[in-house]
Amino acid sequence: MPSCVVSRLRKARASVADNPAEGLKRWALKLEYDGTGTVGWQRQHNGLSIQELLEKAAAKLVGGQAVSSATAGRTDAGVHASAMVVQIDLPDNAMRDARQIRDGLSYHLKPHRVAILEAAAAAPGWHARFSAISRAYRYTILNRPTRPVLDIDHVWHVRRPLDAEAMQRGANYLVGRHDFSSFRAAACQANSPLRTLDKLEVRRAGQYVTIEAKARSFLHHQIRNLAGSLQLVGSGQWTPERLRDVLAACDRRQAGPTAPPEGLCLIEVGYPEDPFA
Amino acid sequence: MPSCVVSRLRKARASVADNPAEGLKRWALKLEYDGTGTVGWQRQHNGLSIQELLEKAAAKLVGGQAVSSATAGRTDAGVHASAMVVQIDLPDNAMRDARQIRDGLSYHLKPHRVAILEAAAAAPGWHARFSAISRAYRYTILNRPTRPVLDIDHVWHVRRPLDAEAMQRGANYLVGRHDFSSFRAAACQANSPLRTLDKLEVRRAGQYVTIEAKARSFLHHQIRNLAGSLQLVGSGQWTPERLRDVLAACDRRQAGPTAPPEGLCLIEVGYPEDPFA
Repeated sequence: MPSCVVSRLRKARASVADNPAEGLKRWALKLEYDGTGTVGWQRQHNGLSIQELLEKAAAKLVGGQAVSSATAGRTDAGVHASAMVVQIDLPDNAMRDARQIRDGLSYHLKPHRVAILEAAAAAPGWHARFSAISRAYRYTILNRPTRPVLDIDHVWHVRRPLDAEAMQRGANYLVGRHDFSSFRAAACQANSPLRTLDKLEVRRAGQYVTIEAKARSFLHHQIRNLAGSLQLVGSGQWTPERLRDVLAACDRRQAGPTAPPEGLCLIEVGYPEDPFA
Repeated sequence: MPSCVVSRLRKARASVADNPAEGLKRWALKLEYDGTGTVGWQRQHNGLSIQELLEKAAAKLVGGQAVSSATAGRTDAGVHASAMVVQIDLPDNAMRDARQIRDGLSYHLKPHRVAILEAAAAAPGWHARFSAISRAYRYTILNRPTRPVLDIDHVWHVRRPLDAEAMQRGANYLVGRHDFSSFRAAACQANSPLRTLDKLEVRRAGQYVTIEAKARSFLHHQIRNLAGSLQLVGSGQWTPERLRDVLAACDRRQAGPTAPPEGLCLIEVGYPEDPFA
């Protein structure tokens, strides 16, 4: 592991205890949420975050005590999740079982578009972020002349017909361990632009084109930037080979635009052992 | 054809001309709409209908002239469509091509959740309702403990685990030509309770259970009533065989509850020749 990554991990770990504080018990939660109208996962002053909604619901569940949480992935404003994994440390005298946690939190999260799919007592040392070994996202494009109706806020609308096979040929150049500087947001805080993309699959199903991406971790905006460039290949503005050149350039200005957030959904977080098994 | 059906067809045909009036040209439209918050397809005094939204958009398109439309299926309040077929008669001096009609109507339908997927000049004598030879609907159940989030307003939430195979065994008793009085709304205006159900397929895909139904035509609430009874079979409260007995009883009180509208979506209307080919 490069030393910069090690130091970053140490710094991050120092800010979140690997084990819950005295008197607290850690729970693993699987969340579904609709990011529309939120500022994303992380608490911010300028709007409603999923984290704030969850922590407020948890505080209600335990009688007003402040509760802190951490996530496997900090999604951006407008990005969705069908299976985000989060940890939350609750007073261990709460005497609640996993089902009560799941249903109680989901109840207190109403009427917001956030709910708990699963809850489980976390194994010793388990951390939602640092124990995770993979993240998978799906980016969905609605590819037709007419604007989205049934899928509004959940797809990127692209009018120009897309060739999904050409997009897959381009995507194949990006799979593997690379310097992804060309697909990294200027605001990205990661110490290294190196990432290993384990999967980048493009498929067409009727009027939908989906891009599924899986990696241990992603750079800020990486998938939306990949989607923005893949769309240029699909519409014939770029050849598939151009993605190889853009990647090699290590220059964000060489790549395509950032695709909008509403097409993106976190669909899976992987751990060495399923925390909900 | 039973004489009652013939007389009903004559009556209905008399109220809508088979051909557009002098100076008008008929267009076939394929619509996608989200029925949430509407009173359904048909114009009513107590709320917003898809028909009113479409006719108002069309009037804007042709400079204020009143426009009338007819549909292949009058969906209820809260029911959706991904491919409803509708006809609309526009002044034939409008000099518009199909693409202008599609995009112009979709534009004037904003910000409502209704848009035109396809438009085509109708063949002589073609009628959206009377020329149709089949309607297909999908009913979607979200089958999990947690309330819907990403699918809110588009699924029926059923907490109790459902056995889709048992539901299919029950559904098989209902396929074919039967008196469907047990699955017919009290307000149904059809002259005959006889219908031929060509397809009733139940499938599970992860946390979703879908019921696809296809017939030349359906009775009022027929699919929602079928879904309500199939759910009782899936949850083990009824045996699959009970559906055979309920059907034979020809008595609405013998069947299960009416499933809620939000799970229902019209997905296809069939014609001898595809009006959009």
